[in-house]
Amino acid sequence: MKTDNLLLVLFAVYPVVRALWPMPRSLQTGTTLVKLSPSFSIEVDVAHPPQDLLDAVSRTNQHLKGDMLQRLIVGRASSDTAALVHAPSLTKLSLTLAPAEVTSVKSIMAEATKDIASRREGYSLTLPASGGAASIVANSTLGLFRGLTTFEQLWYADSAGDPYTYQAPVIIADDSPAYPYRGFMLDTARNFFSVSDIKRTLDAMSMVKMSQFHWHVVDSQSFPLSIPDFPELSQNGAYSSSEVYSSSDVQDIVTYAGTRGIDVLMEIDTPGHTAIISTSHPEHVACAQATPWENFANEPPAGQLRLASAATTNFTTSLITSIAKTLPSTLFSTGGDELNVNCYTQDAQTQAELDESGKTLEEALNTFTQSSHDALKALGKTPVVWEEMALDHNVTLSNSTVIMVWISSQDAAAVAAKNLRIVHSPSDYFYLDCGAGEWIGNDPAANSWCDPFKSWQKAYTFDPLANLTEAQTSLVLGGQQLLWAEQSGPENLDSIAWPRAAASAEVFWTGATLPDGTPLNGTTALPRLHDVRFRMVQRGINAIALQPQWCALRDGQCNM
Amino acid sequence: MKTDNLLLVLFAVYPVVRALWPMPRSLQTGTTLVKLSPSFSIEVDVAHPPQDLLDAVSRTNQHLKGDMLQRLIVGRASSDTAALVHAPSLTKLSLTLAPAEVTSVKSIMAEATKDIASRREGYSLTLPASGGAASIVANSTLGLFRGLTTFEQLWYADSAGDPYTYQAPVIIADDSPAYPYRGFMLDTARNFFSVSDIKRTLDAMSMVKMSQFHWHVVDSQSFPLSIPDFPELSQNGAYSSSEVYSSSDVQDIVTYAGTRGIDVLMEIDTPGHTAIISTSHPEHVACAQATPWENFANEPPAGQLRLASAATTNFTTSLITSIAKTLPSTLFSTGGDELNVNCYTQDAQTQAELDESGKTLEEALNTFTQSSHDALKALGKTPVVWEEMALDHNVTLSNSTVIMVWISSQDAAAVAAKNLRIVHSPSDYFYLDCGAGEWIGNDPAANSWCDPFKSWQKAYTFDPLANLTEAQTSLVLGGQQLLWAEQSGPENLDSIAWPRAAASAEVFWTGATLPDGTPLNGTTALPRLHDVRFRMVQRGINAIALQPQWCALRDGQCNM
Repeated sequence: MKTDNLLLVLFAVYPVVRALWPMPRSLQTGTTLVKLSPSFSIEVDVAHPPQDLLDAVSRTNQHLKGDMLQRLIVGRASSDTAALVHAPSLTKLSLTLAPAEVTSVKSIMAEATKDIASRREGYSLTLPASGGAASIVANSTLGLFRGLTTFEQLWYADSAGDPYTYQAPVIIADDSPAYPYRGFMLDTARNFFSVSDIKRTLDAMSMVKMSQFHWHVVDSQSFPLSIPDFPELSQNGAYSSSEVYSSSDVQDIVTYAGTRGIDVLMEIDTPGHTAIISTSHPEHVACAQATPWENFANEPPAGQLRLASAATTNFTTSLITSIAKTLPSTLFSTGGDELNVNCYTQDAQTQAELDESGKTLEEALNTFTQSSHDALKALGKTPVVWEEMALDHNVTLSNSTVIMVWISSQDAAAVAAKNLRIVHSPSDYFYLDCGAGEWIGNDPAANSWCDPFKSWQKAYTFDPLANLTEAQTSLVLGGQQLLWAEQSGPENLDSIAWPRAAASAEVFWTGATLPDGTPLNGTTALPRLHDVRFRMVQRGINAIALQPQWCALRDGQCNM
Repeated sequence: MKTDNLLLVLFAVYPVVRALWPMPRSLQTGTTLVKLSPSFSIEVDVAHPPQDLLDAVSRTNQHLKGDMLQRLIVGRASSDTAALVHAPSLTKLSLTLAPAEVTSVKSIMAEATKDIASRREGYSLTLPASGGAASIVANSTLGLFRGLTTFEQLWYADSAGDPYTYQAPVIIADDSPAYPYRGFMLDTARNFFSVSDIKRTLDAMSMVKMSQFHWHVVDSQSFPLSIPDFPELSQNGAYSSSEVYSSSDVQDIVTYAGTRGIDVLMEIDTPGHTAIISTSHPEHVACAQATPWENFANEPPAGQLRLASAATTNFTTSLITSIAKTLPSTLFSTGGDELNVNCYTQDAQTQAELDESGKTLEEALNTFTQSSHDALKALGKTPVVWEEMALDHNVTLSNSTVIMVWISSQDAAAVAAKNLRIVHSPSDYFYLDCGAGEWIGNDPAANSWCDPFKSWQKAYTFDPLANLTEAQTSLVLGGQQLLWAEQSGPENLDSIAWPRAAASAEVFWTGATLPDGTPLNGTTALPRLHDVRFRMVQRGINAIALQPQWCALRDGQCNM
C-alpha cells in the first residue's frame, strides 16, 4: 500500500481532526503519537530573518510548552500515557521560504499590511509519523506565520505537562485562505477598551488566522482617539483623560497586530455618528444633541457633520488624513452609515449652504465624501464605507471602494450589481451584540433591535457567495463579526466574542468545503471549536463554554 | 418650616436617589454634600460584638476608601470639587442594637441562617446634613449589616479620591425586606466554578442585600461535591480532581456567605439529573447514558435514581443526610424536576421492583421522596423541591415544604392553591442563561429553549403576587434569578449575571412600590442600576455596561 492510500484510509477512519481551526484547505492526517523532544527547536532557514518572524517563533515555543491543554476526551491526558512511552520524538521544525522569495524577505507586518488583494498567506506543512524533522514552507513570512499557527494547534500536554501530538503524520500540501479579509470589528466609542483588551483580542484573532482588525474607534458618544493635529477632539470628547488612545498606543496596537498577521483598518465614521465632535467644534456639527434624539439619529446623542459646509468638509478631510497617514494599512473607512436627513433639514446653516451652492443634499454628500476619499487615495489608500453609501445615496465611489454590507446579508447582491467589492458584515449573521436586551432606557419591548442572539452555529452557516453570480464572486473580499459596544466593555469582551467569532474565521479561510469535499457542517465543527475555546482559555482569553464539559469530552454524545 | 416638610420638598425636587439598590422601603434624602472625615470611625455600640460584625465593619471601612467610584454625571468628581470645600464632615457612624436585643447578641451568620420566616433584616439609618455622627439601629446584627450595606452605597470619591456623599440628610426610618428569600442560583455541575468564583458571586449578592445562595451543586454531568461518607461520588464523578468542592471548601463557602448575610440552600437533585452517580454506583441508576438521550432525559446524559429500590432509597437518604447535616441552613433541596417516566418504564429492575411491591411509579416516587424529606425534617430542616413535585406528581408534601416555581410564572397560582410556600424562579423572567443559542450539538434551530434573553428590564417587571389571592400572599417567600451553566463557566459568570440579577434583589426587597408610593419602574431604576454596576466593577466584579458611558452619565437622555 502506498503512503497516499494509507493516509486516505486513515483519514476515513478518523474524520475528526480535533485540533485545527480554521480547517486547512488541504489536509491529510494519521493517528500516530509523536512527542515533542526536550531538545526540540525551530530552525528559521531564512537569510536575514525579520525580527517579527523570530519573535513569532519565540511565541510558538512558549505556546508549545505553555498551553498545557490536555486532549478533550474522557480521561484527558492519562488516556495517552501508555501509548506515549514508545512514541517517536520530533526534534526540529524548519521554516523555509520558497526559492523565488529568498531575495526579498519582508517582515510579517509588511506582508500583513499589504493591499488586501496581494497578501500571501499560504503555506505547506509536514510532520512525519516517525518524528525527526517537521517543516513549514511558504512564499512569505506571513505564510510561515500562518503555518506556525497551525503547528501550535497540533500539540497537547501529556500527564507530565509535556507536549505531544496524536495525529501524525500531518501533511498540508498547500493551505491558503479562500478570502483575504477575515475580520473582527470592535467599537471602542460606546464604551472604552484598554490597549491590553485590544491586544488580547488580537491574540484571539491571530489564533484563528484572522487577518483584519476593523477598529471603529470613535462615534457620537466618545472620541477616544488622540490625533496629533486635532488634540482637542479627544481632550473634550473622550470619556476621561485615561480613556484615550495616544499616538503611541495606536502605533503599539498596529504593530502588535501586524506582527501577528493582522492589518488594522481604522474607521472614522462620517458624516453621521459624530455628535461628540461638537464638544470641540460646534461649528461643524448639525443637530448636536437635538431632542428628541430619535428624530435626528438612530441612537442618542444626535449630531452629524455639516456636509454642505466647505469648512467642515476641509476639517473632516484634514482629520482623516492626519490619522490615516500614520497607519500602515492600505484600507481606511470613512463610515457613512445611518445618515439622518431630518438632521440636515432642520439645520439652518446646512440649508443656507445648500441654497447658496445650489446643491441637493445628495450632491453635497457626494462632494463631502469625494473629498475624504480623494485624500485617502492620495495617501495610496483604499476607501471603505458602509453599504448605505453604495445603495442608498448618490455617491460616486471608485471601483476599488470596499463596501461593508451590514443591514442584511441580502444586500450583498445589490452591492455586487454595482461592481463594488464586499466585506460581509451582516447584522443577521455576524452581529455579536444582538439578543442581549434593549439598552434604550425606557423601551417597553426590551429586546435588542437585531434579536435574536447570533449563535456561532448561525454564523457558521453563512454563505459568502449567496445570490451572487459566478462573475461576481471575485468581488467578495471576505467578512467579519462585529461587536458594537453599547452593552459591552472590558468586562464581557472576551465572553461575548469568543469562541463565537471564530465561526467566520473558518467560513472565510476554509471556504465552502472541508478537505474531504463535504460542506462545512456545524455538528462536525463543534469538537474542533471546543478545542479552540479551551486553548483560548489556557492563553488567558475568557472564551465561554459551548457545552457542559461532559459534552466537550464526548464527541457527538450531546447531539440530538 | 419643620424638618419633615423640608425633607419632603427636597425629595420632590430630587427624586433620583442615585446610590441606593435595593431602594429602602422608607427613605428621605436631601442634597447636602457631606465629607467623610479623615478621622471617621465606625463605633460598634454592642457589648461582646460577634467577630463577623467586626469583620463587616472592617470591610465597610475598606469599601468607603477603596470603592473610588466617582459620581456618574458629566464631569464626574470634578463637578463637586468647589462645593466640597466648605462641606461638613461625618466623623462617626454608630451601630446600635435595639434595647430588647442587647442581651442575646448573635452573629450575622447565625441570624442569616435562621429559619426563613424568622430572620430579622430591618434597620434604621440617619446621616445628618450637618455631618457629625451617623447611626444605624437594628434588632439584630444582620440588620446592622444590611444598614452598613446601605451606608456604603451613599459614598463617592472626590477628585482626590476622598469619600463624600451628596444626598445628606439621609433618613431611613425603618427599612426591611418585603420578602425574606432574595436569591441567586448557581449550577456548578454542567461546568465547574472555583471557590473564588463563588465567593465573588456572594460579594455581588451581598452588595444588593440578597439573602439566599441556591447551590445546585451536582447534576447528571458531574458530581463536584466531596461528601465525607461517599467519597467515591466525586472521585469518579467530578470532571477532575481539581474540580471538586472539599468539605472544607463547603464550610468556607457557607461561612463566607453567612457572614455576609447569605444563607446557603444546597440542592442534591433527585431522583432525576443523577446520571453521573452511575460512575460509582451503577446499581442505583436507571437508564444510565441510555441513547438516544432525548427518549430518557431533558438533556444528555440520561440517568435517574432507581426510586422503586429500597437500597437506592436508603442510599439517597443517607447521601442527603450526610451533606445536609454539615450545613447550617434550615433549607435543603431534594430537587425533583424533569422526571422522565420512560426511563423507568424501560428499566427492568425498576419494573420488577414495582411489581414486587405492588406500587405504582407515583407511589414509589412518594415513598422515595418521603424518605429523604423525613430525614431532613429529623435534622430540623425544611425540604425544598421544584414545582413538578407539587403539581405533576402525587407526592405528599408537608405544608412547610418550599416549592420553586420555574417552568412558568403562571404556575405559582397552582402551587398556592395547594397551600404550599413559593420561591419564584420562573424561566420566563429569571433564567439568566436564556437566549444565548442552543448548546445541543446539532439542533438546526440553534436557539435556546427559553428564548429570548431575559433582560433586567423584564426581570424588574416581575410581580410576586400576580394571580394570587390576598390570603395566599403570605405563601410567597421571595424569588431568585438562576444561572444554569451549560454555556457558562468562570469566564462569563460575572458578565452573564451582573448587574442583571440585581433586578430581582430590588423586586423582592423593596416590594411593589418605591418610598414615594409610585410603582417600581425600570426607567427610573436605570440610573441607580448604573451605580450598582459601576460600583461592582470597582470591587472586581465584571458586571457589564448597561448602556454607553455617555448615557450612564446623563440620566434620561437615552430614553425614547
